[in-house]
Amino acid sequence: MRPEGNRRATYGGPATAILCLLFGLGAVPALAEEPTWRQVEPANLVFMELLEGRVVIELNPVFAPKTVNQFRELVQDRFYDGLSFYRVIDGFVAQGGDGSDLGELSEVPLIEAEFEREWSADLPFTVVQKPDLFAPETGFTDGFAAARDARGEAIWLTHCPGVVAMARNDGADSSRTDFYIVIGQAPRYLDRNMSVFGRVIQGMEVVQAIRRGAPGDNGIIRDDAAASRIRSMRLGSDIPEEERLAAYVVDTNSDGFADLLRDRRKRTQRFFHHRPPEVLDVCQVPMAGRLTK
Amino acid sequence: MRPEGNRRATYGGPATAILCLLFGLGAVPALAEEPTWRQVEPANLVFMELLEGRVVIELNPVFAPKTVNQFRELVQDRFYDGLSFYRVIDGFVAQGGDGSDLGELSEVPLIEAEFEREWSADLPFTVVQKPDLFAPETGFTDGFAAARDARGEAIWLTHCPGVVAMARNDGADSSRTDFYIVIGQAPRYLDRNMSVFGRVIQGMEVVQAIRRGAPGDNGIIRDDAAASRIRSMRLGSDIPEEERLAAYVVDTNSDGFADLLRDRRKRTQRFFHHRPPEVLDVCQVPMAGRLTK
Repeated sequence: MRPEGNRRATYGGPATAILCLLFGLGAVPALAEEPTWRQVEPANLVFMELLEGRVVIELNPVFAPKTVNQFRELVQDRFYDGLSFYRVIDGFVAQGGDGSDLGELSEVPLIEAEFEREWSADLPFTVVQKPDLFAPETGFTDGFAAARDARGEAIWLTHCPGVVAMARNDGADSSRTDFYIVIGQAPRYLDRNMSVFGRVIQGMEVVQAIRRGAPGDNGIIRDDAAASRIRSMRLGSDIPEEERLAAYVVDTNSDGFADLLRDRRKRTQRFFHHRPPEVLDVCQVPMAGRLTK
Repeated sequence: MRPEGNRRATYGGPATAILCLLFGLGAVPALAEEPTWRQVEPANLVFMELLEGRVVIELNPVFAPKTVNQFRELVQDRFYDGLSFYRVIDGFVAQGGDGSDLGELSEVPLIEAEFEREWSADLPFTVVQKPDLFAPETGFTDGFAAARDARGEAIWLTHCPGVVAMARNDGADSSRTDFYIVIGQAPRYLDRNMSVFGRVIQGMEVVQAIRRGAPGDNGIIRDDAAASRIRSMRLGSDIPEEERLAAYVVDTNSDGFADLLRDRRKRTQRFFHHRPPEVLDVCQVPMAGRLTK
């Protein structure tokens, strides 16, 4: 059954089209309008260097002002430099920091819970799905996946892959330094229960390469030398402008983004022999950012 | 803000409890009954060795008999040994093979589409969610995540992380050799449109370490030498019994598994300050298997 000759078909041609269709980007028919991009403010950018590569995080001070404030201070204090991802469960989360949230040794202040906020008409919100399985309504607010309650009074950031949130103990206000990044199917049951304060906008493949712990041992990596390590974390605004990379993310408030959502919902391409239901999972919309010098 | 002394809290204590709660395994209160395990038939086991590590796949001949048949033959012919994952999009799929499905060069036969099958009362089905966002009903059938239509006439395997399915061109019956593994948020819009024929039961962290292609280039890795390579693929039944590892998976037909689903749906632990909605995403139930000598 092994074909003779070239074992690898040439690239391009129909091949290129196919995953475009699957991925829903550059789809046919073309979007009426392309999404526009916005630049991330340098104060909301975090460059996290691991041995595995660079991870770029966008902070969200609109939804988690106190958490972002303390996290920024810790980054500026180089608190995380040299610490590891000490609890990593494949398909769930990679948790890093000094473990102080979980013990009694830390002198870093506790942070008040920022699980959700009041809806306000000046918040942008581009609807994705109504109703969603886990919430009456999902959408994007300034690039972040979010959800609203039935009465439109509360809004929260949803636990999608790449989301960055504070770890905590049983108490709502028990976060200090430890954070996790979601690396698996969205654990949406954590929505409104954790302080989500950022999202990975580049380098998720680096996050996915973080060393896992044993599932039977709750993901804990007991040999710290074997764990993936944070070489450094820097705020974009602390990097001299001439060295700094500019980060751009899809402007989810743009008409082009709304067109993209419409296109993903319809799936009119002939690739689809069974037409999918016209629904969207807010965590399954590709949102990777771009970095430029 | 950096605490003096030990920068790393001790393990155990409350720490151990917390991610248990988050992960929903070993949860409190204890399950009435623990799920039982079933051994995977060696003929349905595939050991795929990458440089990155070992991936173990369970084949599903009940839902995709023709696909499994041809895949088994290709594995026995050592067709995949030395081939690479040539198109890998982070958060979506890792696609491997010789690319012949996408070109005109292959002598390997085409496979008829096996996108879904008729519901039959002798198929086991443990309900997870009704209705689900993408289907009237989801559940597990012999360990595989699945969904049924409203009239209970059709059943299909759902695109969850770790699912293994055949790549194809626009035509429904255009698969030959290339396959993909889902590595990101479940692309459920592909359900009933692809021949899902297996699932990764161990080694998803290895799959997640597969080298990605450039998103702008549709994930294609143009330098084949840089791609992740399949060193070998072997059927469990082709490995001498004394060398063979036995694979065990959760028996999704067991009462213990139904208890586990109930526990995950309820989330009564005091960790939850906001009680999550009593719904379950069929793709967010941890299903990793165990290997023993």
